[in-house]
Amino acid sequence: MFESAEIGHSIDKETYEKAVVELREALLDAQFELKQQARFPVLILINGIEGAGKGETVKLLNEWMDPRLINVESFLRPTDEELSRPPQWRFWRKLPGKGRIGIFFGNWYSQMLHARVEGDIKDARLDQAINDAEGFERMLCDEGALIFKFWFHLSKKQLKERLKALEKDPQRSWQLNPLDWKQSEVYDRFVRFGERVLRRTSRDYAPWYVIEGADEYYRSLSVGRIILEGLQAALKHKGRPRPQPHAAPLMSSLDKLSLLDSLDLSRKLDKDDYKEQLATEQARLSGLMRDKRMRGHALMAVFEGNDAAGKGGAIRRVTGALDPRQYRTVPIAAPTEEERAQPYLWRFWRHVPGRGQFTIFDRSWYGRVLVERVEGFCAEADWLRAYSEINDFEEQLHNYGIVLVKFWLSIDKDTQKQRFKEREEVAFKRYKITDEDWRNRDKWDLYVDAVDDMVDRTSTEIASWTLVEANDKRYARVKVLRTINEALEAAFKKG
Amino acid sequence: MFESAEIGHSIDKETYEKAVVELREALLDAQFELKQQARFPVLILINGIEGAGKGETVKLLNEWMDPRLINVESFLRPTDEELSRPPQWRFWRKLPGKGRIGIFFGNWYSQMLHARVEGDIKDARLDQAINDAEGFERMLCDEGALIFKFWFHLSKKQLKERLKALEKDPQRSWQLNPLDWKQSEVYDRFVRFGERVLRRTSRDYAPWYVIEGADEYYRSLSVGRIILEGLQAALKHKGRPRPQPHAAPLMSSLDKLSLLDSLDLSRKLDKDDYKEQLATEQARLSGLMRDKRMRGHALMAVFEGNDAAGKGGAIRRVTGALDPRQYRTVPIAAPTEEERAQPYLWRFWRHVPGRGQFTIFDRSWYGRVLVERVEGFCAEADWLRAYSEINDFEEQLHNYGIVLVKFWLSIDKDTQKQRFKEREEVAFKRYKITDEDWRNRDKWDLYVDAVDDMVDRTSTEIASWTLVEANDKRYARVKVLRTINEALEAAFKKG
Repeated sequence: MFESAEIGHSIDKETYEKAVVELREALLDAQFELKQQARFPVLILINGIEGAGKGETVKLLNEWMDPRLINVESFLRPTDEELSRPPQWRFWRKLPGKGRIGIFFGNWYSQMLHARVEGDIKDARLDQAINDAEGFERMLCDEGALIFKFWFHLSKKQLKERLKALEKDPQRSWQLNPLDWKQSEVYDRFVRFGERVLRRTSRDYAPWYVIEGADEYYRSLSVGRIILEGLQAALKHKGRPRPQPHAAPLMSSLDKLSLLDSLDLSRKLDKDDYKEQLATEQARLSGLMRDKRMRGHALMAVFEGNDAAGKGGAIRRVTGALDPRQYRTVPIAAPTEEERAQPYLWRFWRHVPGRGQFTIFDRSWYGRVLVERVEGFCAEADWLRAYSEINDFEEQLHNYGIVLVKFWLSIDKDTQKQRFKEREEVAFKRYKITDEDWRNRDKWDLYVDAVDDMVDRTSTEIASWTLVEANDKRYARVKVLRTINEALEAAFKKG
Repeated sequence: MFESAEIGHSIDKETYEKAVVELREALLDAQFELKQQARFPVLILINGIEGAGKGETVKLLNEWMDPRLINVESFLRPTDEELSRPPQWRFWRKLPGKGRIGIFFGNWYSQMLHARVEGDIKDARLDQAINDAEGFERMLCDEGALIFKFWFHLSKKQLKERLKALEKDPQRSWQLNPLDWKQSEVYDRFVRFGERVLRRTSRDYAPWYVIEGADEYYRSLSVGRIILEGLQAALKHKGRPRPQPHAAPLMSSLDKLSLLDSLDLSRKLDKDDYKEQLATEQARLSGLMRDKRMRGHALMAVFEGNDAAGKGGAIRRVTGALDPRQYRTVPIAAPTEEERAQPYLWRFWRHVPGRGQFTIFDRSWYGRVLVERVEGFCAEADWLRAYSEINDFEEQLHNYGIVLVKFWLSIDKDTQKQRFKEREEVAFKRYKITDEDWRNRDKWDLYVDAVDDMVDRTSTEIASWTLVEANDKRYARVKVLRTINEALEAAFKKG
C-alpha cells in the first residue's frame, strides 16, 4: 500500500516553481467557482507519518488559496464542551458549509490510529471506528460533499533523517506529536494499522491518496494537482447527490517515476545456480504441500504481468514440483455466458480451493483494474470500486487461513519486443502471439499507471504484491517459488 | 421496529382469493420480463421468527411463479466442500444469475442470529458479521442485483399459539429449527438481536420489510405485492448500475390497518387525577434531573405529532418542573441559510446537549421522513436513506449515554378539526393556525403511512418511539412525563 511512496519521488526546484504559478491560479479559479456554485463542501483530510510534511502542506494550501474560504481544524485536545458530548460532535460542528473547504488536520483517523498504536484500544474497537468513519463519509458524500484523504508517507529511513533534522531545530520541535516516533516500534505499528485503515476505508467515493513526503516539491505539487483535478471534475459534474466518484482520482506520478521503474531488471541467475536453486525450492514446496499443517490452510497464487513476461513458464516450474491431485491451474480469459450473468468476483470465488489445496490463477480478478480499465471494458465507477471489493474478498480468504501470493512479472519494452519476435519466428510458439499483443504494447504507459495504482491500493498487510524482475526467466522462476515457500512457512509458523 | 407487525393484520379469504388471481398473473409477467431483459438478478432473503410462515411463503412463491426461474436455497448444514472454504463461499456459489430469482431461506442473517442467540458469538463478532453482510449486499447492488429482505414477525403470544399448533401436527414438526423456541428467553433474545441486525442493515438500496406473520392471507399477499412492485419498478428503470433504491419499498398496509389505528384514543384522565399525577411526575422529573447520576448522562426528548395534537402544552408541562439552566427547547422550523449549507443532520447535532443537560426538540430530524417526504421537499432517495442515517445518529447518542425519548402525539381527525376551529375563534390562539394547517389535513392518510414507516424503521431497542394517545390533553401530558421519568430511571439503573 505504501510501496510507491518509498521510491524517492522528487521534482527539481525549477520545474516546481514554474508549475506552482499555474497551479495557484487554477486553484483560486476553482475555489471561486466553488463559492459561486455553493453546491457542495470540500473536505480534505490530512494523515500519515510524522514529519512527512503534513503541517507544511496545510500551510501551503492556505497560502495558495483564498484562506477566507478555508477552515483549518486541528482537533487537538478536546475542549470541555466537546468532552461533554458524543465524540462525533466536534467533527460535525466544524464541517465546512457548501462552497467552502475544510482541512481537517488531525481527524477521526488520527484519533483511532493513535489510540490503537498506543494500545488504548484493540482491533475490535479499531474496526468499529473504521466502520463508523466509513458510514460518516458515505453520508457526507450522499449529501454532496467532495472528500480528499491524503496519507503522507515516509520510509523508516526517511523518518529517522527527518526526526534528526527536527531535533536540531528547536523552533519546530512543537511539531512532534504525542506518539514517540523515535521508537522504531511506533513506526512499525503505525504503518501496520495504517494499512488496515486505508484498506478498509478507501472507497470509490472517497479514496485515499498516498503521497511520498520526503521531497517537498513533489509532495506539494502532487497534493495541489490532485485537489485541483478532483475539484474541477466535481464543479463540472452538475448531478446531485454526490459530485460522483472522483473523476480524476488516480493520476500518474508527476515525476514519471513509477514503482515498476524502481525494479532492477538486470537481475539474473546463471544456469548452474538456477538449476540448483530451482531444485531446492521445488523440493521445499513439495515438502510444504505435504506438511500436515497444510490441512489447516489453502494456497492461492495469482500471476499477472506484461505479455510475454513468462507467466506460463513460471507456473510450470511451480506445478512441476507438485502432485496433480493437490493443485489446479485456472486460466482466466473472457468470461463465459454463465459468468457474465453473475457479479464480477463470482467466477473467482468458484475456484477458491478447499483446505489443503492449491489454486494457481493465470491472470485473475485483477483484470478489472488492468485490462478492463485500460481498454475501457467496464465503466470507471466499476473499476474504481473494484479495489475495495477485491480487498474485502482477499480479507475473507485471509481470515479463513488461505495463503495468497500475488505476482506481477515485469519485463522492459525491449525484452518484450524481442520475445514477441521470437514467438513469431518459432513455429511452435506462434500460437502465443496475436495482433492483440502488439496492440496492448501501444498502451504500455497506461498499463504502467494501472499497475502502480493496483499495487498502491491492493498490496495490503494481508495480501501483498510481489514484483518480479522477469527479464531473466531463471531469476523470475526462482523468485516466484521462493516467495511461495516463504509465505507458506510464515503461515505455518503463525498456525 | 416490530410494533406494526403485532397489531393483528388480517385479510378475509374472499378478498385474498380475488387479489391472488391478479397478483399471480402480474408476477408471472414480471418474471418473464425479468428473464427477457436478463439485466439483473433478484435475491429474496427470508428471515424472522419461527412459525411466522417463512416456509409456507417460500412454497407459495414457488407456486405463484415459474419455478424453473427460481432457485430456492436453504443453507442448512454445510457440506464438506463448503466447510473446507471461507464461509462466504456457499452463498457466492448459489447466487442467482441475471434474469433469475434466488430465494435464500436461511442465509447470513439466520446464521449470525442463531450464533448470537445461542451465545456462540458476542456482540463484537455480531457487529462484524453485520458489517460483512452490509458490504456484501452493497456490492451485489452495485453489480445490479435487486434485493428484498423479509422479516416474518410474530408477537410472543402468537408464537406460543403457533408452537402449540405445530406440536400437535407430527408431520410439520420437522419445521422446528435448532433453536428451542419454546423457551421464552429464546424469543426475547432473537427479537432483541434481530432489532440490532435490522437497524444496522436496512439501507435504502436493500431495506427490510417486516411482515406480520399470524394471518396467512395478509402475510402472503403482502410479500407478493412488495415483490411485484419492486420488480416492476426495477424492470422499468433502465439505468445501470443499480436498479436504484427500490422505487416502491414502502407501501401502506393491505388491510388499511395502521399502527396509529391500534391506539385507544378514548383514554383520558379526569381533572383531579390529572392534577395529582402531574404534580407527582413533575416532582419525580425534577428530582431525577438533580440526581448526581444525571452527570453521566444527558437527555433528549423529541416531540412530533399531528398538528394541534398538543405538543406545546405537553412540552410546557415538562419544562414546568425544571430549572431553566438545565434545559433548552429547540423549535424546529425551516432551516436557516447556514443550516441549508450543511448535511441534513447538522442542525440537530449542533443542539446535542452536554452532560447533565436536557434538550427538547419541538419537531425534529424526523421532519425528513414526515413533512419532507409527504410534501416532496426532498428527493425520494434522500428520505429513504434518512432512516438508516437517523439510526446511526441515535446510536452515537446512545453509546455516549444520552437518553433519547421520542413521542408521537396522536389525535383523530375530528379532534383536530375541533381544535383548529377553536383556534380560529379564540383571539389569542389565532396565531397558531394557518392555511397550511388546513392543507396538511388533506394529506392525513399520507402522514399515517409516513408515521407507520417511521416507527417501523426507527423505533429501535436503543431509542424506541412512544405513541401518545392525545385526544385527551391531560392523559397525554402525564404519559409524556411518566415516559421520560421511566427512561431516565432505567438509564440510571444501568449506570
